[in-house]
Amino acid sequence: MSSARYDVVGIGNAIVDVIARAEDGFLLGHGMHKGGMQLIDEARAEAIYAEMGPAIEISGGSAANTIVGVASFGARAAFVGKAKDDQLGRTFAHDIRAASVAFTTPFASAGPSTGRCYILVTPDGERTMNTYLGAAQHLAPEDVDRELISASAITYLEGYLWDPHNAKEAFRRAAALAHEAGRLVALSLSDAFCVDRWREEFRDLIRGGTVDVLFANEAELKSLYETADFGTAAAALREEARLAVITRSEQGCVVVNARGLEPVGAFPVERVIDTTGAGDLFAAGFLVGLARGAPHATAARLGALAAAEVIGHLGARPETSLKDLAAQHGLV
Amino acid sequence: MSSARYDVVGIGNAIVDVIARAEDGFLLGHGMHKGGMQLIDEARAEAIYAEMGPAIEISGGSAANTIVGVASFGARAAFVGKAKDDQLGRTFAHDIRAASVAFTTPFASAGPSTGRCYILVTPDGERTMNTYLGAAQHLAPEDVDRELISASAITYLEGYLWDPHNAKEAFRRAAALAHEAGRLVALSLSDAFCVDRWREEFRDLIRGGTVDVLFANEAELKSLYETADFGTAAAALREEARLAVITRSEQGCVVVNARGLEPVGAFPVERVIDTTGAGDLFAAGFLVGLARGAPHATAARLGALAAAEVIGHLGARPETSLKDLAAQHGLV
Repeated sequence: MSSARYDVVGIGNAIVDVIARAEDGFLLGHGMHKGGMQLIDEARAEAIYAEMGPAIEISGGSAANTIVGVASFGARAAFVGKAKDDQLGRTFAHDIRAASVAFTTPFASAGPSTGRCYILVTPDGERTMNTYLGAAQHLAPEDVDRELISASAITYLEGYLWDPHNAKEAFRRAAALAHEAGRLVALSLSDAFCVDRWREEFRDLIRGGTVDVLFANEAELKSLYETADFGTAAAALREEARLAVITRSEQGCVVVNARGLEPVGAFPVERVIDTTGAGDLFAAGFLVGLARGAPHATAARLGALAAAEVIGHLGARPETSLKDLAAQHGLV
Repeated sequence: MSSARYDVVGIGNAIVDVIARAEDGFLLGHGMHKGGMQLIDEARAEAIYAEMGPAIEISGGSAANTIVGVASFGARAAFVGKAKDDQLGRTFAHDIRAASVAFTTPFASAGPSTGRCYILVTPDGERTMNTYLGAAQHLAPEDVDRELISASAITYLEGYLWDPHNAKEAFRRAAALAHEAGRLVALSLSDAFCVDRWREEFRDLIRGGTVDVLFANEAELKSLYETADFGTAAAALREEARLAVITRSEQGCVVVNARGLEPVGAFPVERVIDTTGAGDLFAAGFLVGLARGAPHATAARLGALAAAEVIGHLGARPETSLKDLAAQHGLV
């Protein structure tokens, strides 16, 4: 195995977030499940947008946010995802490149416009997401470049990729190429409803060794093992996964590895403004630690630090240098 | 004169802000004048965008920001400005309508894309603006609806309108229609360099009575009267203007009216994040006070309150209800 050119390559849906504040009543009135992610078609996207408040646009996408976080730690990062050659697509490409991430996936020149996620942030800082995948659903296996995957220490995939059919094939190809090159494959379960849609396939990926590192929050884990009991779910995960991290919001996280379960604390947050991206950024810090050969507990602290930064402001990408932040906290 | 349907109608360039943080060196390296606004062509827009950091997109435009502020105070507001029927144009239209502003100017169906302002925010919170007018320069006199202007207590115009030729004609038509209907005309000088480009024409508008209410910051006022001395400039303004407000950042403002010069204090700001929109939002508060018949000093306090809100966060439009804020401060 040659030395890696990238620490982490992420593959995910290329999405621009459209973020507005909303009251809980707005979610109720539109049949939205608070805190969740719902896939919507273009007509519903238009209807929701027409009724939501003034918004800001920020590049997003779960794995894309993670990869920007990886780059913000000063690690070498690349991204693969499909946008269209429209204003939003050019915005997405600009923002991820401006964050020092290598991004060379060609734009779709026809078909649906660049994907959007309509995010309603309620006064408690919780975010409720409505995703119109648009061009992202046309990510194809041929967009996954063998050289790029082989040259990356870790290939990181978002569970949301399992929704569009083509993207699932791209996911499988990426995992196979990574393992062929002796690299690691990491997966985030993304969302409890996403787990509900693809439970058996996700469990096969974990049990079968397609996934070396798994990220899940408590709700996703419980959905994966269809239990309301955290202990039961964690024990089941320990049986099946090589290395996993279960994130538990302000209760920190639990690292699951060959030695057992190890809880790691969260960083205190003065005021939660917007939880969008907390899981994505946790993964960023953990992956950076892993790529650098840090102990798992240290990697988890890096994840907790990045998550704390991103929930302190609107939007799912870091506003401050995570490298500097890690140095301030003695984590590098 | 019949009772007004709108408290304020604003006419200005329809612009989407593209905001990124930057170091002072970036401004120097690109020959930008810190704190100013520079008009740029499409090629320079592309060049600046390619080199600036990850950005967020928020609807902007000087008069548009003011009008959104007016609506946030609970007053009745309308806006006239030209965007194109593209993704950014639809964003602009959505955001201003979602802020409860009446906006019916038809989109341009051909020609340049929706205007953008590339804003670099330095660590001190100061903003440096590079504006590509795009579709905004095609605002035409026929976009100014007689019924709308006649039905608005105050017609508010931004000095930036003086840059595109067609928009200047739209400005003149709006002022004439407003006065025909016995309404007030207000003008913001926008920017010291804008004053430098149009000094004599702006002075003619003030002296000739085309403008009833003038907003200027200290730099714009000094540019208008070509003096470095504030007192000299203020005295000259008092000779020529009926009612004016000179904003002086953290020193508050000075109201200039028939009774003389009256200083009014600013609201304290815990931390200046981004000064974009401070002048725009000051105008919003003052205009709301004026439309409600409040004493000029009270109107100025409403302006100061709105300015303080907007410089406490990124972006030039209020994030909290100015109506509620005014109530909390006993200003309604």
